[in-house]
Amino acid sequence: MDQDLGLVFLSELVGTAMLVLLGCGVVANVVLKGNKGFGGGFLMINFGWGLAVFAGVIVSAYSGAHLNPAVTFGLLSRDLATGAEVNWAAIPLYLLGQFIGAFLGAVLCWLAYKQHFDIEEDPGAKLGTFSTGPGIRSAGWNLVTEIIGTFVLVFVVIGFAAQNGDTQAAVPAGLASLGALPVALLVVGIGASLGGPTGYAINPARDLGPRIAHAVLPIRGKGSSDWGYAWVPVAGPIIGGVLAGLLGPVLIAGVSGFAA
Amino acid sequence: MDQDLGLVFLSELVGTAMLVLLGCGVVANVVLKGNKGFGGGFLMINFGWGLAVFAGVIVSAYSGAHLNPAVTFGLLSRDLATGAEVNWAAIPLYLLGQFIGAFLGAVLCWLAYKQHFDIEEDPGAKLGTFSTGPGIRSAGWNLVTEIIGTFVLVFVVIGFAAQNGDTQAAVPAGLASLGALPVALLVVGIGASLGGPTGYAINPARDLGPRIAHAVLPIRGKGSSDWGYAWVPVAGPIIGGVLAGLLGPVLIAGVSGFAA
Amino acid sequence: MDQDLGLVFLSELVGTAMLVLLGCGVVANVVLKGNKGFGGGFLMINFGWGLAVFAGVIVSAYSGAHLNPAVTFGLLSRDLATGAEVNWAAIPLYLLGQFIGAFLGAVLCWLAYKQHFDIEEDPGAKLGTFSTGPGIRSAGWNLVTEIIGTFVLVFVVIGFAAQNGDTQAAVPAGLASLGALPVALLVVGIGASLGGPTGYAINPARDLGPRIAHAVLPIRGKGSSDWGYAWVPVAGPIIGGVLAGLLGPVLIAGVSGFAA
Amino acid sequence: MDQDLGLVFLSELVGTAMLVLLGCGVVANVVLKGNKGFGGGFLMINFGWGLAVFAGVIVSAYSGAHLNPAVTFGLLSRDLATGAEVNWAAIPLYLLGQFIGAFLGAVLCWLAYKQHFDIEEDPGAKLGTFSTGPGIRSAGWNLVTEIIGTFVLVFVVIGFAAQNGDTQAAVPAGLASLGALPVALLVVGIGASLGGPTGYAINPARDLGPRIAHAVLPIRGKGSSDWGYAWVPVAGPIIGGVLAGLLGPVLIAGVSGFAA
Repeated sequence: MDQDLGLVFLSELVGTAMLVLLGCGVVANVVLKGNKGFGGGFLMINFGWGLAVFAGVIVSAYSGAHLNPAVTFGLLSRDLATGAEVNWAAIPLYLLGQFIGAFLGAVLCWLAYKQHFDIEEDPGAKLGTFSTGPGIRSAGWNLVTEIIGTFVLVFVVIGFAAQNGDTQAAVPAGLASLGALPVALLVVGIGASLGGPTGYAINPARDLGPRIAHAVLPIRGKGSSDWGYAWVPVAGPIIGGVLAGLLGPVLIAGVSGFAA
Repeated sequence: MDQDLGLVFLSELVGTAMLVLLGCGVVANVVLKGNKGFGGGFLMINFGWGLAVFAGVIVSAYSGAHLNPAVTFGLLSRDLATGAEVNWAAIPLYLLGQFIGAFLGAVLCWLAYKQHFDIEEDPGAKLGTFSTGPGIRSAGWNLVTEIIGTFVLVFVVIGFAAQNGDTQAAVPAGLASLGALPVALLVVGIGASLGGPTGYAINPARDLGPRIAHAVLPIRGKGSSDWGYAWVPVAGPIIGGVLAGLLGPVLIAGVSGFAA
Repeated sequence: MDQDLGLVFLSELVGTAMLVLLGCGVVANVVLKGNKGFGGGFLMINFGWGLAVFAGVIVSAYSGAHLNPAVTFGLLSRDLATGAEVNWAAIPLYLLGQFIGAFLGAVLCWLAYKQHFDIEEDPGAKLGTFSTGPGIRSAGWNLVTEIIGTFVLVFVVIGFAAQNGDTQAAVPAGLASLGALPVALLVVGIGASLGGPTGYAINPARDLGPRIAHAVLPIRGKGSSDWGYAWVPVAGPIIGGVLAGLLGPVLIAGVSGFAA
Repeated sequence: MDQDLGLVFLSELVGTAMLVLLGCGVVANVVLKGNKGFGGGFLMINFGWGLAVFAGVIVSAYSGAHLNPAVTFGLLSRDLATGAEVNWAAIPLYLLGQFIGAFLGAVLCWLAYKQHFDIEEDPGAKLGTFSTGPGIRSAGWNLVTEIIGTFVLVFVVIGFAAQNGDTQAAVPAGLASLGALPVALLVVGIGASLGGPTGYAINPARDLGPRIAHAVLPIRGKGSSDWGYAWVPVAGPIIGGVLAGLLGPVLIAGVSGFAA
């Protein structure tokens, strides 16, 4: 079908803003003092992020709900590898919508939790609400973890798309290929299973957009935005997504034939 | 279709009573002494409220399961904004059913937990079972949080309705537009992600109905019904719902065209 | 359709055995010393019982998966109230299958957790694995709680059945009317929301069958089977189920007309 | 349909690798020091393993997603018992794919959590991330628990397959018979309800593959691979799966007739 590229941009912007509002929101609830969900645990964060994807996918159906540059680059790699047609003009609009949406979602999250940011004394808790940081810092191993986590995300999305006959899809086939509920559950699972070491960015926009928001917003008592780490949750997910895009058609039985 | 307005009233009353019985019930289980679920945590409360919506939607299919004045006003705003037909006669019956149902649900919850209300010494825990209160009191910021949370609820409902071709729906298209399971998960997510500061009323009937029940029931050792705060979880959700109704058709790609 | 009554009996027996094996199993895991899930919390118990229903419904499709005398009596009441045809010969087989199945499921659970029953010192924890007991003992109020909880179960089942056109169903339409997943979620919700005071038997077979197993099995260091309380989780659920069967067609809009 | 046996092997390998990467991953997150999910509890592990199955089933659709020798042997027993046709050539490829995939998944998990394995001081926690061990050691009773748990898994899979008309299926009908979501929920339930005593291997490949990985990988400060216990989570699941395959057609009403 013909896509209106302005609507693609709007769709990705709105969906990613929804994703980040709810995703950063659950972290704020669990880590910022005085909240009803304070100390609610990592499973609560996993469900919160999974259902953030759920809501984001529903309001972003028009563009197929990528919501994540790693998904966009992963599907692009898949389509190049299998000789599918690529809508090059759409790609910058996907990415732009994602990063701007992620920034706006983080601003909304800050507003929803404004007073709790104000009374929280730990600058690390504040930054942790916006963007990810590793438990044990080591660019190499943190990168490995982010690559594996994002590989799983994009690989399963490709597997699901293949089952549903969406194998030659142009760019629009994103997270919406799975439907909102399966992709939400997948993200709950990736968080629980692979989120331990780095907090599972698995999405460059989800991490960089809110980090920029952290840097520019007048957050009371904020500390560093940890720019030294910022490249890891951008590079890792893109590498993981591209690897999944290239290997998906080779490794997922029944997908490999789709470019024949 | 032609709706029997008496059945609309009954449907909303029964659905909202179910919603509030189970929703207030999970809070009672977690916060009142001597319960099996005492101290069960916020994620349990999130699931309890989500599944309360699930049950409420199933028994309220006839009226489309609004169960929430913010949904009714939000869909009304959408329909006015897009030029859809409005069934004005139904609206007061929706609202009346919701408030009376919420009151009755709270009474049933009190009966189910009667002995635990009796032995609980903290009046705050008792009120917290009925209606919401903020972690940090500030009418303005509490209002912002309720507006954002309810906006997400109604906005996603509109997005989902649009996907299912329910774009010119008259008033009956409520939470049932998503189906009981997706709306339940959405409410789990909103609770986990945006419920921290105010306990997510996101529904004027859910908060005011039980607050009135708290005021009139002979609850042993009860304290104030906190009427000074009562307007926030009424006004915030209505504002959020109306905003979502007005902005949904503009911001959700693919919905914007439906009034054309 | 014509039902083979022997297969109805088998189906209810196997389904209820599955239900009680998994349901009592999760309690054993959480309350008996030395288990991986020890101290796992009430939400884990809620999910365990919900998914126990899920598994039970799948293997009990032939008979419609009542798995619960309160469901059988509730649907019978509904059918009598609405003038639907009743298959009287099937009813004793439903009940017999349920009680025998529940007994056998409890025996299997004891075998699966044999060593943990052996090392556990608290007789109350052992009995609590088999059958329910109240947080605050009071036959009247405990009965009220069980009535309300079971009413919700059967009422929502009837509401769902009505949506799916299964309104004049003979006895076979049980929990399977909702499908395995929705009824599982409903039971998670009832447990979280109404399970606090009595541990939500909401099923006479689920409580009495395992209580008999507790009485007759050679459980090391077991205490009383608490026969004084045993009638409450039998009478309460039956009353609640019958009330739901009688009131469902009156209170659920759109169902009321089905006997016309 | 004609299956390409090479693709069957690939499909099982990839699916089981995904299963074990995510399944062992959630244990690593909860038990290894310094992780975001450290101490997250058994319900989180249950959800992590359930969603690991979910992801594994999606990428293993070609082969029907057995992912587990107990499923392969269980369905083989069912097909022999009911006189269905068996594709003998496929069976060794199913098993080989499962064990190699499980080994590779464990290697990937180790890489994702490399630094946390390095800093963890307890060798038991490291082994527990790879393979299961009992709370109370006793080969006989541990075997009973694994038999019961795996029986439930394969029995419900057979019940579900029967409902969907997949009763004469050749080998491909595995976990995919339920669909990815129901089988995921079933595994969450089995873990919560029957995982207490032994940590629910319920799958010989899931336990032995990672145990071999534990033995051969250069894991810093690792201890014994506990080979004395290794046969229990192999033998128990196979016995349980075969029993379910033989008894399923007899005990599940409506399935019994399918070989007639």
